[in-house]
Amino acid sequence: MKVGIIGANGYGGVELIRLLKSHPFAEIEFLVSHSTSGTNIKELYPHLSSILEMSLAQVHVDQIAESVDVVFFSTPPGVSLDLLAQFSEKGVLCIDLSGDHRLTDPEVYSQWYQKEPASANILNQTVYGLSEINKESIKDSKHVANPGCYPTAALLGTLPVVKEGWVKENSIIIDGKTGVSGAGRKNSLATHYSEVNENVKAYKLGTHQHIPEIEQLIASFSGNTESITFSAHLVPMTRGIMCTIYADLKEPVTSEIVTDLYHSFYENHPFVRVRETGDLPKTKEVYGSNYCDIGIHCDERTNRLTIVSVIDNLVKGAAGQAIQNMNLLNGWDETTGLTGAPIYP
Amino acid sequence: MKVGIIGANGYGGVELIRLLKSHPFAEIEFLVSHSTSGTNIKELYPHLSSILEMSLAQVHVDQIAESVDVVFFSTPPGVSLDLLAQFSEKGVLCIDLSGDHRLTDPEVYSQWYQKEPASANILNQTVYGLSEINKESIKDSKHVANPGCYPTAALLGTLPVVKEGWVKENSIIIDGKTGVSGAGRKNSLATHYSEVNENVKAYKLGTHQHIPEIEQLIASFSGNTESITFSAHLVPMTRGIMCTIYADLKEPVTSEIVTDLYHSFYENHPFVRVRETGDLPKTKEVYGSNYCDIGIHCDERTNRLTIVSVIDNLVKGAAGQAIQNMNLLNGWDETTGLTGAPIYP
Amino acid sequence: MKVGIIGANGYGGVELIRLLKSHPFAEIEFLVSHSTSGTNIKELYPHLSSILEMSLAQVHVDQIAESVDVVFFSTPPGVSLDLLAQFSEKGVLCIDLSGDHRLTDPEVYSQWYQKEPASANILNQTVYGLSEINKESIKDSKHVANPGCYPTAALLGTLPVVKEGWVKENSIIIDGKTGVSGAGRKNSLATHYSEVNENVKAYKLGTHQHIPEIEQLIASFSGNTESITFSAHLVPMTRGIMCTIYADLKEPVTSEIVTDLYHSFYENHPFVRVRETGDLPKTKEVYGSNYCDIGIHCDERTNRLTIVSVIDNLVKGAAGQAIQNMNLLNGWDETTGLTGAPIYP
Amino acid sequence: MKVGIIGANGYGGVELIRLLKSHPFAEIEFLVSHSTSGTNIKELYPHLSSILEMSLAQVHVDQIAESVDVVFFSTPPGVSLDLLAQFSEKGVLCIDLSGDHRLTDPEVYSQWYQKEPASANILNQTVYGLSEINKESIKDSKHVANPGCYPTAALLGTLPVVKEGWVKENSIIIDGKTGVSGAGRKNSLATHYSEVNENVKAYKLGTHQHIPEIEQLIASFSGNTESITFSAHLVPMTRGIMCTIYADLKEPVTSEIVTDLYHSFYENHPFVRVRETGDLPKTKEVYGSNYCDIGIHCDERTNRLTIVSVIDNLVKGAAGQAIQNMNLLNGWDETTGLTGAPIYP
Repeated sequence: MKVGIIGANGYGGVELIRLLKSHPFAEIEFLVSHSTSGTNIKELYPHLSSILEMSLAQVHVDQIAESVDVVFFSTPPGVSLDLLAQFSEKGVLCIDLSGDHRLTDPEVYSQWYQKEPASANILNQTVYGLSEINKESIKDSKHVANPGCYPTAALLGTLPVVKEGWVKENSIIIDGKTGVSGAGRKNSLATHYSEVNENVKAYKLGTHQHIPEIEQLIASFSGNTESITFSAHLVPMTRGIMCTIYADLKEPVTSEIVTDLYHSFYENHPFVRVRETGDLPKTKEVYGSNYCDIGIHCDERTNRLTIVSVIDNLVKGAAGQAIQNMNLLNGWDETTGLTGAPIYP
Repeated sequence: MKVGIIGANGYGGVELIRLLKSHPFAEIEFLVSHSTSGTNIKELYPHLSSILEMSLAQVHVDQIAESVDVVFFSTPPGVSLDLLAQFSEKGVLCIDLSGDHRLTDPEVYSQWYQKEPASANILNQTVYGLSEINKESIKDSKHVANPGCYPTAALLGTLPVVKEGWVKENSIIIDGKTGVSGAGRKNSLATHYSEVNENVKAYKLGTHQHIPEIEQLIASFSGNTESITFSAHLVPMTRGIMCTIYADLKEPVTSEIVTDLYHSFYENHPFVRVRETGDLPKTKEVYGSNYCDIGIHCDERTNRLTIVSVIDNLVKGAAGQAIQNMNLLNGWDETTGLTGAPIYP
Repeated sequence: MKVGIIGANGYGGVELIRLLKSHPFAEIEFLVSHSTSGTNIKELYPHLSSILEMSLAQVHVDQIAESVDVVFFSTPPGVSLDLLAQFSEKGVLCIDLSGDHRLTDPEVYSQWYQKEPASANILNQTVYGLSEINKESIKDSKHVANPGCYPTAALLGTLPVVKEGWVKENSIIIDGKTGVSGAGRKNSLATHYSEVNENVKAYKLGTHQHIPEIEQLIASFSGNTESITFSAHLVPMTRGIMCTIYADLKEPVTSEIVTDLYHSFYENHPFVRVRETGDLPKTKEVYGSNYCDIGIHCDERTNRLTIVSVIDNLVKGAAGQAIQNMNLLNGWDETTGLTGAPIYP
Repeated sequence: MKVGIIGANGYGGVELIRLLKSHPFAEIEFLVSHSTSGTNIKELYPHLSSILEMSLAQVHVDQIAESVDVVFFSTPPGVSLDLLAQFSEKGVLCIDLSGDHRLTDPEVYSQWYQKEPASANILNQTVYGLSEINKESIKDSKHVANPGCYPTAALLGTLPVVKEGWVKENSIIIDGKTGVSGAGRKNSLATHYSEVNENVKAYKLGTHQHIPEIEQLIASFSGNTESITFSAHLVPMTRGIMCTIYADLKEPVTSEIVTDLYHSFYENHPFVRVRETGDLPKTKEVYGSNYCDIGIHCDERTNRLTIVSVIDNLVKGAAGQAIQNMNLLNGWDETTGLTGAPIYP
């Protein structure tokens, strides 16, 4: 199957290339980049020498649509708003790694992204691509809105207890910690080595655009529309996200009982690994892989649940899940091309 | 004034040496280490060559007590339980950086530390050395129990709103993130470079011995004895602690109002720097210094308060605050020898 | 084909597992560890959960030899000296990642390793497994002595000009820089995070056991037995080795001419990527992959050649090259199971 | 004494501020920045809150020259060419941390910096401020050209044996390894965290502007004008430089004899610490301090000398040595304000 990547010169794009090169059924046909078109990708990323030496092209929808079956958008906010509809019209399957098609309520999108939303028609045809949760509807869809990195870790960690109604929705607090690669390759003081190394910072408190995405899914599982608290923190590493999730329990339960719930919730989902009670996952334990590892701690003193959920932000949080969704869209086993073990240490 | 350091071969001990060497009134007279006695400290720490070339001695209470006015304990749990009383009896001022004398309730100590507690008599004479909070009683005391690193950041960040009664005590959640130096110099898989680098882990959920220390102080300010949730996380850096503190507001207030409260609470406390609204401190901004920097965010959507509090775990979280307490014990200006700016970047 | 790993609980062993799990023809049948036998590998390495959940066994040569076709030794110095001969006798192909069988002169081995050498008989049947250099003889051998990590980078960078006789052999200086994972998972002050982070150190100057290994190969290509200088440096990262190689040119040549030589020398060797003139490889550009990337700089002012050679120490410097050798031993394409792209960033 | 800093918004400027705030005789009167004038320095560097809250000004030579006794230039190449002469004319002592006045031969400057050189008149009045080497002439000068970071480490490590004539000058190879802060605060892909972390790269081979600076000093000690080889490498840390220096010995000597030479050469120079034979310094052992630590290894096999020299690039390699030179210019003890111990770990 022929594949095109729009925004191939960013870290998300490059991670798509790495994973697609190991995919048995996918062939990269087009790399698109507005800002670096005309350049060979290996000039920008010498690690791709002899692996994929392809020029980056401008986006010509007609030409690309003729050659590819699937297109991935690994683009900044706003870019896919217009383009996805065009590709869709021509029958190309679309997987959007940006946030442009994740929020079903156009007003919420406008409010958090400060942009005009996609058309209602397009949004209706789009499925939120949290693969484990929306597996069946993804299979039947034409467009997938690939989840944000934080929401992937946060929601896989939270939804089982929300669905059961075991926690008070308005008590949910998600403390997120991310590596720097999530900020992309653009130069800024926020990604400057000397500013990031030996440093932890909190950012975008109360204003992070992943907040409505998390709330939307929680609401759909709980039936309530409670606000949650989400805080983002940058830690000095390249890859990895941990979400430490806190929630008040409605009734006392033990760690074992909650762990059992998670084991059974994710029984048929090979990319979610629920740890035994007492064992908590570390971000490095999923490095480079499509796993989401989850650990559970119920605290009797406080009657509060703590859930630790980790992913590689560029794999399960972006390119890996996008390929998982491509597999589902095409009716392949969802693990196709994604079975690489985490790289450790 | 003559000073001795018990446990001089650990990171806390070495940081005491660095800071005491810049102190105008203190002179290091004795370095004690049980495990490395007989060795010159510069063999263990070549960075001290030509700065302090002194042999580590076994602890001989009589001999040391004759020569020094103040003794610092930078020792593992249990060591100062016996020794502090002996030095105290001989009239030596004692500053205990370990956790052995922090908890006023012996039963709580036994429960969390799994050791026999100090005698009630000694505990009664000991002041909890959170310098900004207990300034006056420290001045009059003979022993100071220097706070833990996490509690220092957590409590300086929390106590102003707890004192005012603006938050629900049982809603307090503290998400702590620390550098590796807090674990000391002992070799273990938990401090192995290849295991820590590019990794974030949560540890000791619900069982960290700093929990009762935080609860004790919050209770003394609120009058309640509510349990709080505290989670510890290891991030890949050497120094620095951030506590991200969450609490439900009883009544809606703005970030500006809370920031004003903190500004006025810490008005006469030069080591606490409260940031303007919208500005959040990073750990590197206090690196190597005795500052605690605090930033405030009130979220209207959730009616929840988020406080970000950062320190250098080895300075304000250990050796620096210990010297600040030594200054107070001796009636000196509390900033004496501690005015060095953070090292940046 | 059935495979066993002796020393499976170290970083080399775990990297073998990662790569073998992606190999189409290999199946892991036995994991052996003396110190942690009885434990499931996932207890030691939770990242392997659901990927390889196998107990570590004691080494029972008969039992293992019956079940496997190939055995990898990822063991400390001295361990394979005895064991390899036993497995060999039973017809098992042996690939030794330790240094025990690399030096053809038993006296040199004794001198640098301070141990009794392997028998002359075994050494005679063993091929030095620098795959690109000894490809044909590896195919015909029964035992492969897998090269050291530094020698792999150093020799692939040096041998083409040595073979041509373009440089003075006694002028060769190799400045090696390695990440920490090369030191293994054993706890020590030398691998303690707080000691390694923000730090560079030189170590084992003039005494590193990789020196005779490098000299042996250079001598075999040059016909001389000149001593070379090799220095090892530890830099604060987990994976990666760079060798910066200096040598005086006998006659002036340009960077372009030397680059051409390397291109043609490595024409049929897919894992060596020679960069265009003016482009120098970085360690991260081979991270997690089996590539060795080489860049060339001839300096007219000094008539000296500088060569920069990088590998991932755990892949091309250990487990990856071992599998490349396994492929050669079995007559498979040497890239089988090793085509994964570097993980970037 | 009143002090002004031109280029105060860079890392060199900020390190000058940190050190000058601890200096008993210096008072910061002016902070100048072209690009950020009008901003308070604490907006750019929150770690300076309550320490130095001063607005950055445009450079008005007359106004500044009236108020200050000494001016530091922490500026990009080219800036001080014009300004230093103006300040000098008005009797202000000038310390130039840039490379604009280091090379005595204007043609060499033009060739390596691609700029018009300073006037011969100004260059004649300028002393190269390698404090240990030119101590007496610095005391009598009006302008000091503060050495580059690499040359400081390289030359303090090399000059004793060059002066004695023990090594072949044309055999000298200097392999430099630096942290990222040397590249300043400017955003670029070369300082992007995700590109630098877990990475080592070589850069500017044969073209680094520090090469003529090193050669100029070696020539002045040896009487020859041999070319040397210098290679720069970026390693993933913020601060620190190590130069590993290789040179062929004219006659065999032992490590002990060379170490003795260095001990006696630096006998009266408190900031150079020569390690005992067998002990090699690490960059972290001088972190934040003005020390240069040196270790010696003579290799009998190769008759080659290896010297390891480390500094903190922002202290002894920039701001610290500048203040050491200010001390000398003013007849103060050279250690004034610079006695802080390295911060470890």
